[in-house]
Amino acid sequence: MNFIEERILKDGIVAKGNVLKVDSFLNHQMDISLLEEIAKEFKSRFNDKKIDKILTIESSGIAIACMCAKEFNVPMVFAKKSKSINIEGDVYSAEVESFTHKTINHVIVSKKFIKAHENILIVDDFLANGCALQGLISIVQQADAKVEGIGIVIEKGFQDGGKIIRNLGYQLESLAIIDDMNDLTKEIKFR
Amino acid sequence: MNFIEERILKDGIVAKGNVLKVDSFLNHQMDISLLEEIAKEFKSRFNDKKIDKILTIESSGIAIACMCAKEFNVPMVFAKKSKSINIEGDVYSAEVESFTHKTINHVIVSKKFIKAHENILIVDDFLANGCALQGLISIVQQADAKVEGIGIVIEKGFQDGGKIIRNLGYQLESLAIIDDMNDLTKEIKFR
Repeated sequence: MNFIEERILKDGIVAKGNVLKVDSFLNHQMDISLLEEIAKEFKSRFNDKKIDKILTIESSGIAIACMCAKEFNVPMVFAKKSKSINIEGDVYSAEVESFTHKTINHVIVSKKFIKAHENILIVDDFLANGCALQGLISIVQQADAKVEGIGIVIEKGFQDGGKIIRNLGYQLESLAIIDDMNDLTKEIKFR
Repeated sequence: MNFIEERILKDGIVAKGNVLKVDSFLNHQMDISLLEEIAKEFKSRFNDKKIDKILTIESSGIAIACMCAKEFNVPMVFAKKSKSINIEGDVYSAEVESFTHKTINHVIVSKKFIKAHENILIVDDFLANGCALQGLISIVQQADAKVEGIGIVIEKGFQDGGKIIRNLGYQLESLAIIDDMNDLTKEIKFR
């Protein structure tokens, strides 16, 4: 069992509707030492790749991307959620459906901040159905840049996102993959 | 002229409607070395204070708060924007008007993550009319915790937020205070 799986068992809360609450250490209150450890682990897993930039999506990806940017010594960019697609000017955009909030957002990145042929590492806290990730991949492709890898802290292995992304041929590294969880018994099964 | 003022002159863009765009280094693409320097500067300015936790508001405050949390060696919490006040359970909340988007948000922090008598350092990227900051202060007060200080990267000195917060007696440290800017001449006057 690795450090993320241990922390999930210690402080994660399994709630109804296949929700795993990790808000005490990952996406509301943040444990910075843990984020540093996550960044070091991604650095080791993508050690053979040349990474020019870290890309994530607001909000809970930002702190993780921030520590990764420090570890890889590159800039970080976060995609913004926007209700309207046109107001923000010269942007790449994608449609993203939120699993948690059941809403559709436009996700935008200014064209200034992803350049052609840049090597991008995408990071985020959760991977479930993969909609957010597909939006980020689309944005990188629109920029004619390259997704060198994808680092996820917690993958919900019982949803389809991970399978889809791996089938597309990307190197997807999820630090913890949950194959099953039960809000009655509070049991969590890791892959 | 300090390092933030220099960077604003180098990479900031003065736009219509008293908007200063710093999205190439502070709130869309992030320069992590700069964020580290910001965190070190806040540490030195609040060096006499005991800080238990860093508090900010999503989204652009998160990266700054993250590096501050590392520098102060404490956890970080970010307040979440929420359309509805009631759905999130046991939370402290405040109403905040966005200067940029002209919308009203509820801002919430789970009661678990700010405890009575904790000493809180609030940080954010911008201070304009002070609405976001007043919301965060209100949340800290609801928790019966103490605002030990407030660290802002860029204060718009021609708006009222800074004056209000200082009049309330808080130690407010703004790394750059802009007293005037002109989108035609592109001139920026620092205090």
